[in-house]
Amino acid sequence: MSVDPQGAARGPLAMIAGSGDYPLQLARIVIGHGERPYIAALDGAADPEAFGEGADIQRYRLGQLGSLLEELRRRGIADIVMLGALPRPSFGSLRPEVSTLKYLPHFAKAFQGGDDHLLRGVVRFFEMQGFRVHGPADIAPEMTAPLGALGRKQVNAEQRAELERGFTLLATLSPFDVGQAAILADHRVVAIEAAEGTDAMIRRVADMVARGRLKIGKGDGFLVKVPKTGQDLRVDMPAIGPDTLRNIAEAGLSGIGVRAGQVLVGDRAALGRQADQLGLFVEGFP
Amino acid sequence: MSVDPQGAARGPLAMIAGSGDYPLQLARIVIGHGERPYIAALDGAADPEAFGEGADIQRYRLGQLGSLLEELRRRGIADIVMLGALPRPSFGSLRPEVSTLKYLPHFAKAFQGGDDHLLRGVVRFFEMQGFRVHGPADIAPEMTAPLGALGRKQVNAEQRAELERGFTLLATLSPFDVGQAAILADHRVVAIEAAEGTDAMIRRVADMVARGRLKIGKGDGFLVKVPKTGQDLRVDMPAIGPDTLRNIAEAGLSGIGVRAGQVLVGDRAALGRQADQLGLFVEGFP
Repeated sequence: MSVDPQGAARGPLAMIAGSGDYPLQLARIVIGHGERPYIAALDGAADPEAFGEGADIQRYRLGQLGSLLEELRRRGIADIVMLGALPRPSFGSLRPEVSTLKYLPHFAKAFQGGDDHLLRGVVRFFEMQGFRVHGPADIAPEMTAPLGALGRKQVNAEQRAELERGFTLLATLSPFDVGQAAILADHRVVAIEAAEGTDAMIRRVADMVARGRLKIGKGDGFLVKVPKTGQDLRVDMPAIGPDTLRNIAEAGLSGIGVRAGQVLVGDRAALGRQADQLGLFVEGFP
Repeated sequence: MSVDPQGAARGPLAMIAGSGDYPLQLARIVIGHGERPYIAALDGAADPEAFGEGADIQRYRLGQLGSLLEELRRRGIADIVMLGALPRPSFGSLRPEVSTLKYLPHFAKAFQGGDDHLLRGVVRFFEMQGFRVHGPADIAPEMTAPLGALGRKQVNAEQRAELERGFTLLATLSPFDVGQAAILADHRVVAIEAAEGTDAMIRRVADMVARGRLKIGKGDGFLVKVPKTGQDLRVDMPAIGPDTLRNIAEAGLSGIGVRAGQVLVGDRAALGRQADQLGLFVEGFP
């Protein structure tokens, strides 16, 4: 029996792993806590070998949901956490096994909405099947942005005021289910993220700077990123990572402000070192 | 003595003309009203020949501001209107004539801010020199979006609800001095304009559709465009034109909603015909 940092008692944990470093980091942390999670590596997304030799891991296609549920029940696992990116599959490419067919109607509906809708459908599905779905931040809060600076650089009062304006902007947008991130520069809002994603928004700013449409001075230019109100942080947590920092630096921006505990950063120490190397601040705010 | 539609009495009018069709249309309308405006065609932006043979027109470099002021005073002109795009000049390329040198300090300051700041500085300058600056919508309200549909297509109730959500979003953004336009599709906000401009935002949506990141059904997908609160409509009026409609159609969107009387459309009839040809709605809302 383990206890989540939030205090929720739970039994042995299954990890449903997509692509990227985050699932590997989460597995490392959970194992570091003395647990041995059962890892379901999603085919075409997670690389089972990357989890190391001793990992309790099995590869599943999305169409093998029935087998996964059977295995979880056989093992008496009722607690799951999902993490990592998943290329949105076409419904036709699922090749469901027989034991999965009966679940398809649930997902056929979830597939018709946006990504948020699909993710919420997945959570609801597992809950209806009797599982508890945990967020990576509940299992491993050390993967989220801490309060204060990740590296050596800290924001000054003027930068902090700009960041607060960004946070207020994003909070104002939240009721419209949009605005997970924005970029402020030159004392104004220069980009707001909607469906394009954070990296595309950063590239847009880099492009405006390159074409002389936007000037960013030294110490100016900030990304702010927060969850939207009502966003299900168990399966859809905002994240920044090494690519974000690289893109920010390439765009000529100075740093990133996030909500502490509510944005995934993965390996705090590594991201802090990268921030120092690039001369950026990465700071978590209450 | 003429009377603006808003009721303000004014004397003979000078037009300071940048590039694009709008200055030509405005000149045509003012001449149609029985006036003979004095047209200052900005070098490198407006083509004096495009205004026709009988036009009372003279070409000015930006550095010839002193000569322009002298000529306006010599003619007893106190009322001016500015319209058309102007490539943002570098301060070094102005080559000011001697009579313009004394005005440079004013503009040196205005040049340091964003485009809005520069435009406001220009208005303030002319006002300080004793001129009245009119907006194109005051001089020629027939160049703005009317109430209701420009072409044959009209929005249905569902589309209208989406557009209203877009207008509410933009009004919410206005205090942050951002959000002149947004695109809604698939029952959500898919793009918000900040520093990149409306056309770049539309291209972004087209790109997301092309890459399968965004699906837009038939009758779905709308651009909303309005002025920001406090925007000086005399020199900085939001506009849609033939390029906007073409881009909207290419992106697979269905139409455009604007605030009636507050967005320039230029030639209403021509834009209505184009909307019909492209199968789009263009509708002005109160």
